[in-house]
Amino acid sequence: MDFCGKSTLVRGLGERLRGAGMPVRFSREPGGTPAAERIRELLLDPRGEMDPWTEAYLYAAARADHVRLLILPALERGEAVICERFLDSSLAYQGRGRGLGMENVRRLNLWAVGDLVPDVTFYLRVGEEERLRRARASGVPPDRIERSGSGFMRRVEEGFEEIARRDPGRVRILDGTLPPSELTEMVARELRGYTRGG
Amino acid sequence: MDFCGKSTLVRGLGERLRGAGMPVRFSREPGGTPAAERIRELLLDPRGEMDPWTEAYLYAAARADHVRLLILPALERGEAVICERFLDSSLAYQGRGRGLGMENVRRLNLWAVGDLVPDVTFYLRVGEEERLRRARASGVPPDRIERSGSGFMRRVEEGFEEIARRDPGRVRILDGTLPPSELTEMVARELRGYTRGG
Repeated sequence: MDFCGKSTLVRGLGERLRGAGMPVRFSREPGGTPAAERIRELLLDPRGEMDPWTEAYLYAAARADHVRLLILPALERGEAVICERFLDSSLAYQGRGRGLGMENVRRLNLWAVGDLVPDVTFYLRVGEEERLRRARASGVPPDRIERSGSGFMRRVEEGFEEIARRDPGRVRILDGTLPPSELTEMVARELRGYTRGG
Repeated sequence: MDFCGKSTLVRGLGERLRGAGMPVRFSREPGGTPAAERIRELLLDPRGEMDPWTEAYLYAAARADHVRLLILPALERGEAVICERFLDSSLAYQGRGRGLGMENVRRLNLWAVGDLVPDVTFYLRVGEEERLRRARASGVPPDRIERSGSGFMRRVEEGFEEIARRDPGRVRILDGTLPPSELTEMVARELRGYTRGG
């Protein structure tokens, strides 16, 4: 979720893995390609109102671009791809948060992701109170998704918890309140098993 | 297809049906709602490059907004909705033109259209030569879709022809080279059977 420390973790990993000579490509969703970045603007613009299904399709549109034009080519070149957010976020935010149904949203994304599944997903678990504290401390005005209210955010969190529970082989739960350096160390250690350079 | 006389026909119908006191709502795709109009800009921008699946998802995103926020509410109020382009255009342009497969594109649009099927669809058939002549005469610079080349446009046309062949109960083929007033008359006559005011 937002304010769980994703960007800090990715920054720390970047320094660490690149320092170790690993061929790593970092990215984020929605975004990563020119078209996907324009879709991102549309999605996060606080002035924009849209139907929840439109929102789900726009995330899938951005993901299709990202997967086909950035992730798959990078994997084919032998690079590891580390991405902030992926399909799970759509399942949690639109499937559970907006109430569209996680299975519907998974099927809707079929042509965006094909059979691409992350080798490992790290779920940074941070309680609601701490997330709100960090959001306030950041001073960043909330985007359209973040303005959807606390009931929405609680459903999103339940969505992520359910995904983690159902797929323990892929999803590692991390205590997002640990010091950033410790989290970086834990994730870097785990990633050694997945990257060619590891 | 573009330059087949859709807008002229719809304008003529507008004058005629409103003059007869029919509650009619006119619209077009992609567009019709604020979010869908912004998606339209993104889709038609000649500078934008994107994966064909991204394109298909963006049309579905615009359609989901259009159907749920404009078409269904209008139908519930007892209005007739006359729309320039709908799902068939995605099947022809992305399914056949881009080669994604008409059945894939139909399934991808499932959550955008639900079980909404037009009562009647008018297919304005105009040969390639005449369309190109009209395009040149219009002086309008081609948008991103129109710049996809003549092979693409021929496949799109085949797509529309196939849809018309497969679904003769819904799709009426009109000779788009007839005088506009005659086309308006033919369509208005047929629509009397569908609108409440007719």
